[in-house]
Amino acid sequence: MYGTELDHLIQLLSKLPGLGPRSGRRVALHLIKHRESLMGTLIQALQMVSERLRTCTVCGNFDTQSQCRICTDPRRDNSLLCVVETVADVWALERGGSFRGKYHILGGVLSAINGVTPEQLNLQTLNERIMPGEVQEVILALSATVDGMTTAHYIVDQLRDCRVTVTGLAQGVPVGGELDYLDDGTLEAALSERRMFHKPYV
Amino acid sequence: MYGTELDHLIQLLSKLPGLGPRSGRRVALHLIKHRESLMGTLIQALQMVSERLRTCTVCGNFDTQSQCRICTDPRRDNSLLCVVETVADVWALERGGSFRGKYHILGGVLSAINGVTPEQLNLQTLNERIMPGEVQEVILALSATVDGMTTAHYIVDQLRDCRVTVTGLAQGVPVGGELDYLDDGTLEAALSERRMFHKPYV
Repeated sequence: MYGTELDHLIQLLSKLPGLGPRSGRRVALHLIKHRESLMGTLIQALQMVSERLRTCTVCGNFDTQSQCRICTDPRRDNSLLCVVETVADVWALERGGSFRGKYHILGGVLSAINGVTPEQLNLQTLNERIMPGEVQEVILALSATVDGMTTAHYIVDQLRDCRVTVTGLAQGVPVGGELDYLDDGTLEAALSERRMFHKPYV
Repeated sequence: MYGTELDHLIQLLSKLPGLGPRSGRRVALHLIKHRESLMGTLIQALQMVSERLRTCTVCGNFDTQSQCRICTDPRRDNSLLCVVETVADVWALERGGSFRGKYHILGGVLSAINGVTPEQLNLQTLNERIMPGEVQEVILALSATVDGMTTAHYIVDQLRDCRVTVTGLAQGVPVGGELDYLDDGTLEAALSERRMFHKPYV
C-alpha cells in the first residue's frame, strides 16, 4: 500500500518486540522524515553491531572482543560466579551495580514444555569454569518460575561434587512493593524467610 | 556499559517514537539474537528506503517514483482533492479505502506557538493544482484542533477566488464511541450537526 520498499520496512519494524503495525508505521515515518540525520546513523550502527559483535567464549555475553570486558576485567572477583539465563539479565544486574563477580550465561532455562534439554544450554562449560578451584560461590540468579527452579535444581545436582557453595536469590517483597498487591506465593515466601531485626538477651 | 557499538545502537533505538531505554534494549537484544535472519534484512530494507524513497513532486507523498502511485493512478478521481497535514494522514485515509480522489499534503499546520508560517507549508502549489479547473471539490481533512481550524480558515480564504467547493470533515460521535465518555465539545458539535433520519409529511 505504501510502496514495496516501505511496506517491507514497516513489516520488519512491526515485528520487533514491543512494536506493532501502528508503531511500526510511526517509526518508519519518523526515520524517513529524519532521513539525513537519523537513517544513515542507524544503518551504520546496525552494521557495526552486526559485523563486530561476538559472543564471549567464556561467559556468553555480547562484546566486540572474543572475551567480554567483564570476563577480562582484573578488578572483578573471580571467586563469585553468577549464573543467569540471558544477556538481558547480565545487563539488569550490571545496572544495579552491586555485583562485582563474574557471570555465566545459560542461554535459557530447562523446559519440558518448550523441549529445552540440558544439552541446549551452556551447562557443560559451567563445570569447566568451576573445576580450577578459583570459584568459591555460584549464585543462581534464575527466574522464580517452575522452569527456573527446575534449572536451579539441575545445576545444584550437577555441581554436587565440586567444592563450591551454591546460593540462590532471596525471595520476598519487592522493594517499594505494597503487601496488598502481592500474590500469595510471594507473601508466603517473604514470611517464611523473614529477617531478624532484634533479639532480646536471654 | 554494553560496549560502545551496542551502546550507540541502543541509544539510537531508544529515541525512536514509541520506544524508550527499556524497549530499545529489548529491540537491540532481539536483533542480535536473530542476527542472521533479521539484522541483515532490516539493514537492507533501511538502505533501500533511504536510497530510493523520494517525495512526490505533486502531492508530497513518499514513493520510489518522482510522482507517487496515487497521483499517477488513472482510476482515481481528479475532481476530488483531499488536503491533509502529513503522509501518515494519507495512509490513514487509504486504510479506510473509501476515498477515491487525490491528495495534497501540507506538511503540517499553521501554528503561532510553533512559529509555522504559510511559507513553510505546501500551500502555494495548492492553488496551482486547482487552477486548471479539473478539481471540483477540496476536502480539508485537517485535525480538529485550533491550529487545524486556523489552517482550514486560511485555505478557505486562499481559495476564495477559485471556482471550487471547499468542504471539511464532519464532526461528531466517533464510530463505536459511547456518549458517556465523550467530551462536551464533541457532544455539542454532534448535536448541532445532527442528521435527519425521518421527517413526517406535512
